[in-house]
Amino acid sequence: MSKFDLVITNGLVATASDIGRFDIGIKDGKISCLAPTFEPGDLEGVEVIDAEGAYVMPGGIDGHVHLSQDLNSGPNGVGGRCADDFETGSRSAAAGGTTTVVTFAPQTRAEEDRSLIACVERYAAKATATGSYVDYGFHVYIVRNDPEILRDELPILVNEWGVTSCKVFMTYEPIRLGDRALLDVMFAARKNKLTTLVHAENGDMIEWLTEKLEEKGMLAPWYHALSRPTIAASEATSRAISLAHLVQNPILFVHVGSSMAAEHIREAQSRGLPIYAETCPQYFNLTWDDLAVGITEHEASMEGEVWEQECHHQQEPHAHETCVEPAKLTSLLERKTGAFKYIPNGIPGVETRLPLLYTAGLLEGHITPQKFVEITSTNPAKIYGLYPRKGAIMPGSDADLVIWHPDKSFKSFKLQNDMLHHNVDYSPYEGQEFRNWPRYTILRGKAVFANGELVGECGYGQYLKRGPSVLPGYLPGQEKIVRHVAGWLYD
Amino acid sequence: MSKFDLVITNGLVATASDIGRFDIGIKDGKISCLAPTFEPGDLEGVEVIDAEGAYVMPGGIDGHVHLSQDLNSGPNGVGGRCADDFETGSRSAAAGGTTTVVTFAPQTRAEEDRSLIACVERYAAKATATGSYVDYGFHVYIVRNDPEILRDELPILVNEWGVTSCKVFMTYEPIRLGDRALLDVMFAARKNKLTTLVHAENGDMIEWLTEKLEEKGMLAPWYHALSRPTIAASEATSRAISLAHLVQNPILFVHVGSSMAAEHIREAQSRGLPIYAETCPQYFNLTWDDLAVGITEHEASMEGEVWEQECHHQQEPHAHETCVEPAKLTSLLERKTGAFKYIPNGIPGVETRLPLLYTAGLLEGHITPQKFVEITSTNPAKIYGLYPRKGAIMPGSDADLVIWHPDKSFKSFKLQNDMLHHNVDYSPYEGQEFRNWPRYTILRGKAVFANGELVGECGYGQYLKRGPSVLPGYLPGQEKIVRHVAGWLYD
Amino acid sequence: MSKFDLVITNGLVATASDIGRFDIGIKDGKISCLAPTFEPGDLEGVEVIDAEGAYVMPGGIDGHVHLSQDLNSGPNGVGGRCADDFETGSRSAAAGGTTTVVTFAPQTRAEEDRSLIACVERYAAKATATGSYVDYGFHVYIVRNDPEILRDELPILVNEWGVTSCKVFMTYEPIRLGDRALLDVMFAARKNKLTTLVHAENGDMIEWLTEKLEEKGMLAPWYHALSRPTIAASEATSRAISLAHLVQNPILFVHVGSSMAAEHIREAQSRGLPIYAETCPQYFNLTWDDLAVGITEHEASMEGEVWEQECHHQQEPHAHETCVEPAKLTSLLERKTGAFKYIPNGIPGVETRLPLLYTAGLLEGHITPQKFVEITSTNPAKIYGLYPRKGAIMPGSDADLVIWHPDKSFKSFKLQNDMLHHNVDYSPYEGQEFRNWPRYTILRGKAVFANGELVGECGYGQYLKRGPSVLPGYLPGQEKIVRHVAGWLYD
Amino acid sequence: MSKFDLVITNGLVATASDIGRFDIGIKDGKISCLAPTFEPGDLEGVEVIDAEGAYVMPGGIDGHVHLSQDLNSGPNGVGGRCADDFETGSRSAAAGGTTTVVTFAPQTRAEEDRSLIACVERYAAKATATGSYVDYGFHVYIVRNDPEILRDELPILVNEWGVTSCKVFMTYEPIRLGDRALLDVMFAARKNKLTTLVHAENGDMIEWLTEKLEEKGMLAPWYHALSRPTIAASEATSRAISLAHLVQNPILFVHVGSSMAAEHIREAQSRGLPIYAETCPQYFNLTWDDLAVGITEHEASMEGEVWEQECHHQQEPHAHETCVEPAKLTSLLERKTGAFKYIPNGIPGVETRLPLLYTAGLLEGHITPQKFVEITSTNPAKIYGLYPRKGAIMPGSDADLVIWHPDKSFKSFKLQNDMLHHNVDYSPYEGQEFRNWPRYTILRGKAVFANGELVGECGYGQYLKRGPSVLPGYLPGQEKIVRHVAGWLYD
Repeated sequence: MSKFDLVITNGLVATASDIGRFDIGIKDGKISCLAPTFEPGDLEGVEVIDAEGAYVMPGGIDGHVHLSQDLNSGPNGVGGRCADDFETGSRSAAAGGTTTVVTFAPQTRAEEDRSLIACVERYAAKATATGSYVDYGFHVYIVRNDPEILRDELPILVNEWGVTSCKVFMTYEPIRLGDRALLDVMFAARKNKLTTLVHAENGDMIEWLTEKLEEKGMLAPWYHALSRPTIAASEATSRAISLAHLVQNPILFVHVGSSMAAEHIREAQSRGLPIYAETCPQYFNLTWDDLAVGITEHEASMEGEVWEQECHHQQEPHAHETCVEPAKLTSLLERKTGAFKYIPNGIPGVETRLPLLYTAGLLEGHITPQKFVEITSTNPAKIYGLYPRKGAIMPGSDADLVIWHPDKSFKSFKLQNDMLHHNVDYSPYEGQEFRNWPRYTILRGKAVFANGELVGECGYGQYLKRGPSVLPGYLPGQEKIVRHVAGWLYD
Repeated sequence: MSKFDLVITNGLVATASDIGRFDIGIKDGKISCLAPTFEPGDLEGVEVIDAEGAYVMPGGIDGHVHLSQDLNSGPNGVGGRCADDFETGSRSAAAGGTTTVVTFAPQTRAEEDRSLIACVERYAAKATATGSYVDYGFHVYIVRNDPEILRDELPILVNEWGVTSCKVFMTYEPIRLGDRALLDVMFAARKNKLTTLVHAENGDMIEWLTEKLEEKGMLAPWYHALSRPTIAASEATSRAISLAHLVQNPILFVHVGSSMAAEHIREAQSRGLPIYAETCPQYFNLTWDDLAVGITEHEASMEGEVWEQECHHQQEPHAHETCVEPAKLTSLLERKTGAFKYIPNGIPGVETRLPLLYTAGLLEGHITPQKFVEITSTNPAKIYGLYPRKGAIMPGSDADLVIWHPDKSFKSFKLQNDMLHHNVDYSPYEGQEFRNWPRYTILRGKAVFANGELVGECGYGQYLKRGPSVLPGYLPGQEKIVRHVAGWLYD
Repeated sequence: MSKFDLVITNGLVATASDIGRFDIGIKDGKISCLAPTFEPGDLEGVEVIDAEGAYVMPGGIDGHVHLSQDLNSGPNGVGGRCADDFETGSRSAAAGGTTTVVTFAPQTRAEEDRSLIACVERYAAKATATGSYVDYGFHVYIVRNDPEILRDELPILVNEWGVTSCKVFMTYEPIRLGDRALLDVMFAARKNKLTTLVHAENGDMIEWLTEKLEEKGMLAPWYHALSRPTIAASEATSRAISLAHLVQNPILFVHVGSSMAAEHIREAQSRGLPIYAETCPQYFNLTWDDLAVGITEHEASMEGEVWEQECHHQQEPHAHETCVEPAKLTSLLERKTGAFKYIPNGIPGVETRLPLLYTAGLLEGHITPQKFVEITSTNPAKIYGLYPRKGAIMPGSDADLVIWHPDKSFKSFKLQNDMLHHNVDYSPYEGQEFRNWPRYTILRGKAVFANGELVGECGYGQYLKRGPSVLPGYLPGQEKIVRHVAGWLYD
Repeated sequence: MSKFDLVITNGLVATASDIGRFDIGIKDGKISCLAPTFEPGDLEGVEVIDAEGAYVMPGGIDGHVHLSQDLNSGPNGVGGRCADDFETGSRSAAAGGTTTVVTFAPQTRAEEDRSLIACVERYAAKATATGSYVDYGFHVYIVRNDPEILRDELPILVNEWGVTSCKVFMTYEPIRLGDRALLDVMFAARKNKLTTLVHAENGDMIEWLTEKLEEKGMLAPWYHALSRPTIAASEATSRAISLAHLVQNPILFVHVGSSMAAEHIREAQSRGLPIYAETCPQYFNLTWDDLAVGITEHEASMEGEVWEQECHHQQEPHAHETCVEPAKLTSLLERKTGAFKYIPNGIPGVETRLPLLYTAGLLEGHITPQKFVEITSTNPAKIYGLYPRKGAIMPGSDADLVIWHPDKSFKSFKLQNDMLHHNVDYSPYEGQEFRNWPRYTILRGKAVFANGELVGECGYGQYLKRGPSVLPGYLPGQEKIVRHVAGWLYD
């Protein structure tokens, strides 16, 4: 056996189910060989990383990242654009152990955005313009139910672009879809095997409450949270499950942040339905109180300040745009001209996602290393059609790895925003203690982040054409649970 | 003590909680005295009914009856009108033991119907035109959320008209309301203490399925049922509970016909929420199979027939317009010109409502006489603001009574439509066995139906101005269940 | 009509379903006539009570009262006896608006107690010895499953004694029953139509935790509560429901004090099973904190004191012996010789039961007057076979009434133990504010408590032979829910 | 790199999370290298298996097998012994793709069985006497709660014997444990990190029903099933969860066979509790109807037959002793001398376990290959402390593999008992169609079953000292769910 390009030796290698101490031989950017450590006939590498005492895991896959999005016709009709573009966002991802991001090619209600393919093309051009430090793919927003578009363009998106997932919104005028449009889009998604991401909040409830608050003169940022009660997420979650069940289309709920919504999802899963969900670090690490504090501080300092919207929208950790309960520290900057409803969505988090979960989940004993891998990498790879190229440490898979410092030797620190690599001037986790951080982020066999330094290149990241989800779909007969719905109707 | 106008002696008198053998003295149309039977100093009456072996109960109150409604701009946009008007419908009610009906004053989307007061006035004129055999009140449809109308007219409806309940639809273009409009109407209803009746089916699901069925050429009446799966009712029920909870407005679900919907209601009630519901006899007495049989028979006979829509809509037993699962035998007559979607809603049932429940519920041991009274009379009286005038056997209450044949002496029979007093040419219960039937229906001290004969007069029935519901509403603090919704917001 | 012995005029009369302003004529101890107030031909009475502004309700029925019980072989094997006997306990009941108590004729594991009839006879002698101020009946403990006793004596208890209910314990050595014995007793109860009261706590859990606490030297009274975690009640409740379902025997859970247990009961009821429950005022009025405070105070004062066990057991309000969570202020007196496990059970409450619920429930708007009547009087009357003699205001029923002060004129006060009529030297509700109190307690037409004075006589109270429960039992087919259990097996 | 002893090339290798096409190099009985297929520098092996088109999976681990058990003092007090001993049972396992069995070292209530260590020693001698074809470990029954034994012997069992799991029974006199003993055993198990297997049926319910059936003369085998209603399993499952929760001890339910029990388990898991469960193939493949048919046939043929108990008890597939609902075809042979209660437990299934799940689960699309591996191998390895030596395809793990025929080339067949390798004269799956079967079973690098032939040797199988479960246990704070239970109490 010839020499490998890179050998990771002596680490504790974790996959979504297994964990053991063995070596990884990498050649041509791919996992080539897994073999015991320190045996005669050891793997030889041009380069060798000794990972003694370290976890070696598949690189993080962040399936919910907003980069380079113009917001002109976006939610709330507010102008501006994302704080991070492909360059700064992917740089931040790499620095946090993430080797693949799936970003959103937005459709708006503007006439020129009627074609989904045009939307994707325009968005792809932005990625190409700057290049990326990590591999990337696109979801597409679907904000209309044009029958011709759904019929003609989805096959092209899937087959030519490898865009195998779409996102729909149940809130945000003017891009939200009513039930009828949701049924149409889900039905088309089902036919073309797209995974449907659902932003589940009842837009009418939010708008109604917003008006009620505004009528009372409650315009301050803090009321943003009051305008999004848990029941708005819970109701929309329950409804989307029913719609999906009728259509027999698997869906994934983004940024689930309330126990009421989670219970609906869990209940559906207990009935065997293919209902998936993601959640976000902020839901585990920040509370209502963080929000309250934040408000006071920010409000106090906001006098006379010119707020720059464009520098405060940002990439996201596993979906967080419409976080009902937890903090929206950025968002708490009120526009001079308006009320809380103009607050842009989201908080920055692609870089802190893995380290937060490592500290609060793995080191606290709430999850095993395997579970860590499953939820940060393998499951996103599977549901977004990147598997087995991504999300696995298996011969033939891409050599995308994150290697953690040995826990014992790591000196914990408190985060400051200037430690991060994004293009945002704050982090909601500032001051929070981190007890580990990736030592190496390796993408297709090459380190892109190592020992605290960004060592990759913008442009090394490749566009990923994705396939269909390999997670389970509906089983035969499950349409009967909704009573009398004829499954044959759909064939 | 002077003589009573009428004395009911020797019966087993049942209220919603109690049952005992005693006499009822009636004077000036009201319950005047309750006293032991066969004691010295017995009640003396000008007339005396000896009710030995018979149950004496408060007269039935049917809170969901459609009479004299034009359908020109109604559901499905189909012309025609109800089969029964106030005369024939109230006649049928009286013959079935019902002494009060609450009917629906419809609003349509037509411009001339924008004013709810105008709608009620026009509808009241119809009742006045024919007169009624039994007492009657009006619910009002609300199919728009005009803020001025809600603000200005609801107080007038409540205070001047005694119309203290409204009905909203979550299906049926063009009269159905979206979530935003539902919130607005519920909020106004809450402020004015109207009880909100909700027809809970997801209209988008139904329309979507209807289109799918039509695309396949499945136009026959039987597909009507397929187009209304249980999940459409279940979803809308769950959603309406959430909307009502947000607004803190009590609601009542009409014609609940599926266990999935019932479970949502039950779960909300377990949390202490003021969520009410009615169901209908057809859900206990007819099944999917009755529908299948019905279809075949009707379809076979429909060749070349000119369908008369106006003679097939009808009054209803406790709500049955949009029965998802059970039979709609009338409805199964397809229009010559169209598909199942043109089938008018509803089945006739105001006359059979009490006898059906008596046979299948009371005589089968599923419910006690007290429960029979509670659900057929006392609860409707309370929730629709007729209590304590109606729904009770108590000094001061109206002497509205239904007296049943002694069970042992009653000879059971199979129903034929010509035994009924409505203006419909069929009954879904034809051929079904009845093991009892009211012997007397007494309205304000006067028999209107006795020993199989209609003895009342059209015109004796009075219009009832109603008050607010006396059943429990929301308790302080229940808004917190939806998390962070500020109750004070609504004051 | 001749004069009545007593007329209650002008009150707001409430039953379990109805409420209205009318007069009540009473003759020979029974309700004789209900008639409108202030009409010509008004009821005339030898005595008249003008109840203007007052609620008139059926007298309270406390179905769970411990009086005159020796504890020699009782729970915990501790000697002593109840603080209250029939005289003092019934006096206290009368003063609190309660006209009927159902007390417990205890069986012990002693050989001389093997015969249930002998137990009841001995216990009846105690009642006869002192006499009672209010009417009374007996439940019987069953602490063995002797087949001959169950077969031979239950019919005698039911038919000759009118003892139609039994109580079983799932904790307390040596009187608790294992599952097998529970099945046997429930099966015999089913056959003889006895209502089975269940004290549901898992005795093994409690004993195991007690040992663990004692091993750590945690003997102080406060640990009594720690030794009875909610899960012990929850588990036993769930298990008893399963056992009852298998046997198809209706049961009633006594002193339900935790939401976990309540949820099991609610869930069973949702499935239509005849599972009943009572709860106690302490669960609504006292918390864990009251217990903590109580401990400190009592412990501080306990130095050098000789504890008199016999003066600290007492009659109970609607069951409270083994209150898991709430305070047991009496119970917190540790024996000099031992640990918390020797604390006798129960708190005094028969006198405060109605006033507590009136203040915290009715006046706070949590329940209607009808609901108040239903749970304090009508339901106990029905389930314990006293209906329709008791629990109703209906011609022919006993004239047992409680008349409340007009709410507006009542001056609220803070309770002190010496205001009460029991034989206990404390009340857990001392210092608590009461916003109403019965003005009259009337038993079979005679006032026994009036305007703050006890005016009845000990000995006026009669023993009540009771019939079977008139609340619903199992419906045909419900045994199928447990799968494959053959209902025919039991016939 | 030197030559491997064996190379599996070209197969589709599946683990509990991953699946890919690559080669496996095996040396010294262990997985040594995973590398791409058909690349230059391919793995060279002394022996090579070309697995083109075949799944290669970790060998099956059957954690619930009864071998060589005397039943003298066993359940039902009936004599006899298991049909299969270590030789025949392990032979059958190997032929069905299973490379590790965990068997039960029984304790009885006999005095000489008081020492668990003695029980294990005696049982180990039986294994040694015959040898085994596959690797094996022992669970230990615990049928007493002797405090000294639990304190002194459990550490020895864990540390010296590697017996890290115990089984307790909630039914079967005289070996079943009451709640108190269950708490003691669970508490000791928790302290020593043993996994506790629970046979959850309410023994009192079963005995009570058995007596009721016998009283009616219902002795035939078929009534065995009637005597074990679902509610008996459901109740015991719920109770065991409560007991385990109190003690904070993870448990695993064996042979879960009813949806009611499964719902309790699922609900506990939803609350995050470490409650585990196994189920059995019969619950998916056999129904009540199979039982009914079986009875008729067997009953018909039983005339004059001398029943040989010892030949009808047998090893089991993943636990099936007390299958409530499904068939017990063997068990249906009534003793000449007695009633159905003497029927020995269990059905033979260790050989058919994997093939049944392959056909009904994998090939029908209900589960993925990864899920197949997870439940047949990786999860048992993890929970029974065999991981990562067993249950994984990872460098360093034992080379235990099962290789399946390529699905497309396999010719389905109907099972006949003589195709099997056990010592039982029937299989409940006779006549059932199998659409695949293992082509190779490889244990530590050596084929023990290949191409339909048993090629291993009895004696090659090794005894396995096991470690603790690596699946999650209780999280801090979970004791609070049971309210007020002090976690510190246990330290």
